[in-house]
Amino acid sequence: MVKVAICGGSGYTGSELLRILSQHSGVEVNAITSEKSAGKRVTDLFPHLVKYSGLIYGPMEKERLLAKADIFFMALPHAASQEAVDFFFQKGKRIIDLSADYRLSDPSVYEEWYKTPHHYQNTLKRAVYGLPELYRKMIKKARLIANPGCYPTSAILAIYPALKEGLIDPESIIVDSKSGISGAGRKADLAVSFCEVNEGFKAYGIGVHRHTPEIEQGLSDIAGKAVMIDFTPHLVPMDRGIITTAYAKLTKKISTAKILDLYNGKYLKEPFVKVFEEGFYPNAKHVRGSNYCFIGIRVNERTNTLVIVSAIDNLVKGASGQAVQNMNIMLGFEETEALEGLALCP
Amino acid sequence: MVKVAICGGSGYTGSELLRILSQHSGVEVNAITSEKSAGKRVTDLFPHLVKYSGLIYGPMEKERLLAKADIFFMALPHAASQEAVDFFFQKGKRIIDLSADYRLSDPSVYEEWYKTPHHYQNTLKRAVYGLPELYRKMIKKARLIANPGCYPTSAILAIYPALKEGLIDPESIIVDSKSGISGAGRKADLAVSFCEVNEGFKAYGIGVHRHTPEIEQGLSDIAGKAVMIDFTPHLVPMDRGIITTAYAKLTKKISTAKILDLYNGKYLKEPFVKVFEEGFYPNAKHVRGSNYCFIGIRVNERTNTLVIVSAIDNLVKGASGQAVQNMNIMLGFEETEALEGLALCP
Amino acid sequence: MVKVAICGGSGYTGSELLRILSQHSGVEVNAITSEKSAGKRVTDLFPHLVKYSGLIYGPMEKERLLAKADIFFMALPHAASQEAVDFFFQKGKRIIDLSADYRLSDPSVYEEWYKTPHHYQNTLKRAVYGLPELYRKMIKKARLIANPGCYPTSAILAIYPALKEGLIDPESIIVDSKSGISGAGRKADLAVSFCEVNEGFKAYGIGVHRHTPEIEQGLSDIAGKAVMIDFTPHLVPMDRGIITTAYAKLTKKISTAKILDLYNGKYLKEPFVKVFEEGFYPNAKHVRGSNYCFIGIRVNERTNTLVIVSAIDNLVKGASGQAVQNMNIMLGFEETEALEGLALCP
Amino acid sequence: MVKVAICGGSGYTGSELLRILSQHSGVEVNAITSEKSAGKRVTDLFPHLVKYSGLIYGPMEKERLLAKADIFFMALPHAASQEAVDFFFQKGKRIIDLSADYRLSDPSVYEEWYKTPHHYQNTLKRAVYGLPELYRKMIKKARLIANPGCYPTSAILAIYPALKEGLIDPESIIVDSKSGISGAGRKADLAVSFCEVNEGFKAYGIGVHRHTPEIEQGLSDIAGKAVMIDFTPHLVPMDRGIITTAYAKLTKKISTAKILDLYNGKYLKEPFVKVFEEGFYPNAKHVRGSNYCFIGIRVNERTNTLVIVSAIDNLVKGASGQAVQNMNIMLGFEETEALEGLALCP
Repeated sequence: MVKVAICGGSGYTGSELLRILSQHSGVEVNAITSEKSAGKRVTDLFPHLVKYSGLIYGPMEKERLLAKADIFFMALPHAASQEAVDFFFQKGKRIIDLSADYRLSDPSVYEEWYKTPHHYQNTLKRAVYGLPELYRKMIKKARLIANPGCYPTSAILAIYPALKEGLIDPESIIVDSKSGISGAGRKADLAVSFCEVNEGFKAYGIGVHRHTPEIEQGLSDIAGKAVMIDFTPHLVPMDRGIITTAYAKLTKKISTAKILDLYNGKYLKEPFVKVFEEGFYPNAKHVRGSNYCFIGIRVNERTNTLVIVSAIDNLVKGASGQAVQNMNIMLGFEETEALEGLALCP
Repeated sequence: MVKVAICGGSGYTGSELLRILSQHSGVEVNAITSEKSAGKRVTDLFPHLVKYSGLIYGPMEKERLLAKADIFFMALPHAASQEAVDFFFQKGKRIIDLSADYRLSDPSVYEEWYKTPHHYQNTLKRAVYGLPELYRKMIKKARLIANPGCYPTSAILAIYPALKEGLIDPESIIVDSKSGISGAGRKADLAVSFCEVNEGFKAYGIGVHRHTPEIEQGLSDIAGKAVMIDFTPHLVPMDRGIITTAYAKLTKKISTAKILDLYNGKYLKEPFVKVFEEGFYPNAKHVRGSNYCFIGIRVNERTNTLVIVSAIDNLVKGASGQAVQNMNIMLGFEETEALEGLALCP
Repeated sequence: MVKVAICGGSGYTGSELLRILSQHSGVEVNAITSEKSAGKRVTDLFPHLVKYSGLIYGPMEKERLLAKADIFFMALPHAASQEAVDFFFQKGKRIIDLSADYRLSDPSVYEEWYKTPHHYQNTLKRAVYGLPELYRKMIKKARLIANPGCYPTSAILAIYPALKEGLIDPESIIVDSKSGISGAGRKADLAVSFCEVNEGFKAYGIGVHRHTPEIEQGLSDIAGKAVMIDFTPHLVPMDRGIITTAYAKLTKKISTAKILDLYNGKYLKEPFVKVFEEGFYPNAKHVRGSNYCFIGIRVNERTNTLVIVSAIDNLVKGASGQAVQNMNIMLGFEETEALEGLALCP
Repeated sequence: MVKVAICGGSGYTGSELLRILSQHSGVEVNAITSEKSAGKRVTDLFPHLVKYSGLIYGPMEKERLLAKADIFFMALPHAASQEAVDFFFQKGKRIIDLSADYRLSDPSVYEEWYKTPHHYQNTLKRAVYGLPELYRKMIKKARLIANPGCYPTSAILAIYPALKEGLIDPESIIVDSKSGISGAGRKADLAVSFCEVNEGFKAYGIGVHRHTPEIEQGLSDIAGKAVMIDFTPHLVPMDRGIITTAYAKLTKKISTAKILDLYNGKYLKEPFVKVFEEGFYPNAKHVRGSNYCFIGIRVNERTNTLVIVSAIDNLVKGASGQAVQNMNIMLGFEETEALEGLALCP
């Protein structure tokens, strides 16, 4: 059994890692940390994780943790993750970092959007962006995975085939995303209290959300040149799920059916991407709790625009599920191990 | 007291008309119709409308209704409204039609999108599109008001000042709207059952929704030339509310502050439009039950895009509230009469 | 115009007072306090209260407030209210206290359940429990109203007629209540964050909730002897509303119809209580935003048990609406002034 | 691989069976029926069940089905199930019936509550009530399992230890249950449409719900004498979950701790029942998607009442999960096979 440690495990990505890993036949969670909850049982925070009643949160003592695990899931806040990731990396461990600290390959872009410098640029160079559908081969050989953000996962998977084939104008891309509330994290905050959020819907961080450069980095890599986008995230009164509606101008006349063929081709062997038939669009409800990304497409012939809709569970394919998928690839497990559960619906 | 009739009053727009009109000092509801619910009390369908326990649904007998009312709110299904509206109009009554039948001034556009011809084109010519912020003067003199659709209200109010001033490229407009479930109407339908809708989010009718030509008609009138848009509606798991996020390319460099000045200027005297300060965007929750339209704006300088977010309650400013506002204008009441209630929040 | 001050106005009862009073023709809100939000506009906290954009929260400076208002709505936390209420009472002001501090006439019961002594027992003696359906005459002459708690309002109105007539055994009463989340107040607290509460349902404070002695005091007064009950509150994933399901053993064989007659008789002239016909039970949705209490009843003949279901909006009839109703009675306004709005549904 | 057929598989219990069985290593679903959806793919109705894209609904042709499966899950409507169950039983098949038709051992009670006679009383005698915690030994030897109703599962597991030990008066039991909306089934019905249900809460079927005699049968069997109860179900605006709050008078003075000891003893070896520590009560959210029943307890010493709160997922432990648990027991699989997934939370 491979030994796993989870650093920063009192949030929703931490509890999802535990839920998913409880189904894994080849690993066991041997340590979990939380500064605030040190000394508490996992089930004190998450009564639903009944199988982990014996697992206790410990403090973030890196030296002590070294002996505990072979692979480290890092679910620390942004900026806080930098140093801890570097430490375990230097010690030869495998790491999957769920924070944003190692996602942006250009440290100046990181500093611009996260307002803090990156102090471990050599380690940063070794990080692989953990989107298996684009970078599986590199993930296989990596020791440090920067696990993608939830919005970027939904946006890049939606746009990838069309952009790769040159079907859309890279300067015309608009990404309008809608996320369930768990994307805001597990915290005491009036802004995410039930009565402020329920029966409401709003945009936030228009043009300034930190996932913007991450989406742009992914799209630029696909396009082979710098791409800038408009990205607007919104909050939906539901626990989980992201729907991204992406718009781009087509570079030539082409039918919906043709583009669906292209998408089906690109994603044919992907275990977790499913392209819908013409006229059907995905619902966030249908991926809840699963690692799937569902995609629907329509060409608006009146305006020559391609509209793509993708759905993921922000906590699974958008975070902890993708992290386990990356672990499986790195460690040579079946890629779908522990991720085969179907969505919980309704 | 002006006598009011509501034709087709068993849906949510009907119940909202009753709720709002119960606060009106100058009118009384003298008749209400419903084919399915004829003979039932209003409170059998809507227990919350306690003040209407004496009001009984009758059949749609137009001759009989003539004597009952001076002004007719028509909340019949699309296509079914055509003939009934014409009938009351020919008899000299005032009419506010909440269906789509008299909204599109070009009957061929109507036929294309609604798949049925328009049989009353002379009456259609007399209809005024009931968006007070744009057409107040014409409403004042009209006898037949085509009450705007919910999405068009949210989209046109969002885009109007910028488009009017030539700040945006009319060929670049994208309207990404999100609506609460009441927009789908009151009906027995698996697709809107709680367990299919709750904890979900989806796009629908991409590029083919019937509000598309209505938005385009409004924007074309503002731009002074034909405008075509991309319009994608989505369903939010909440009862009420629409958020529209609109995108358009700016025709010149301009700051958010400057555009806010413009919007504030245009809407200064509007009793029901409120423009937010820079950095703030509206939440559908904050207009629930009220006739307000809230607007927030941001220029994305990186991409030279204007992003506008508007919020309305689809059943109030998007339907019955706007209908009463139109009635007030037509009949010379204070425009805000019966519409002064603040939103119910939380 | 009567001048009103609201002390502790940054919570949901404060915002509801503002919403309701905005419809009142005889009063104006002249001051509002909040320690935390002093200096902020009301609309900074509550964007939906657009009419109050000129109203600024001030600190709780009692001397300064004296000149500002004739009647004081106190929405301070329990215990904190004691002294402030006494101060304004000594100065001859009228007061409606929405805290629990003056509800329990026996100071030892207060101390036992609220774990703090009552320092103003002389003033406590002058307080009238503000449930108009039972104590209207006393309210009319009072200067200090202890506005009832939300659960007690729903429970006492449900049980009153049957208990008063001796139809039920006072020793058998069970009160099983279910409340929307706004009952927990407006606060940054993980326990009421959306993802912890949504799609969940739970009991809390079984047997120890502080509304227990308040319900018992009301029922004891009705029964003419000491009554003890089982009271279990639950949290429902909705913004507003309380459903109370009360059970009691019947003292004799009697039909549902007979008991409905009794209830209808008792509540015949009550503007805000509505008793349902046999076979119908109220839904919290149908009183949302209104000051109504809806009641449904059924005798279980197999077990000789009376089951009573009541519905109120916890923020309106359960708090701010009832407070305004009490103010109307005290000041000689029409009792329904500002409270005539029908529920917002859906 | 054991071959499974699901008869009546277009509802939520059918889709849950598929979801759960997709995790089972020893069985495969070989046929599924639906009159309305015959010819459609499972994924046409349930896009989340991606693994079943090759499974097509067939008509309910019993002869044809005989060859298809060794064990039959029957998810037909009540009354419709009678004959089909008898047919497969006569043919020597194993059957787990999720309808109510074989739950009530006394056919006259069945007829009284379901308003239809039972035509297969010999087969009825062979049915075993499939609540493993009480009847595991009989289930092991049975060929026909009457899978318990959702409310009865929650109520009987809550009350069993206390009643068995004689700690409570059987004549004083009140069962106040609250269920998510999926309990009402998958159907086009205004009463379960989002806008009628969301932000609402109500009681229904007070004293007449058909689960009443089923709960009474279970409790009578435990008590060794006829028990009658008060049972009130309510609808909670959430997809899944049941909380049952049960009340009963204690027959002697006893502490909460002592009763918790008793419950822990009784359920010690149960894989799916978890008793909470003193002061903690279960939340429906924490069992969503899992087969667990969580139980919390409190003695109210003031009134000498025992209050028990239980939580289950109505579609899992209350239906399809328990059905699979019964199958595992019957067929000699590990009892927890396919049921080990932890709850999905949030």
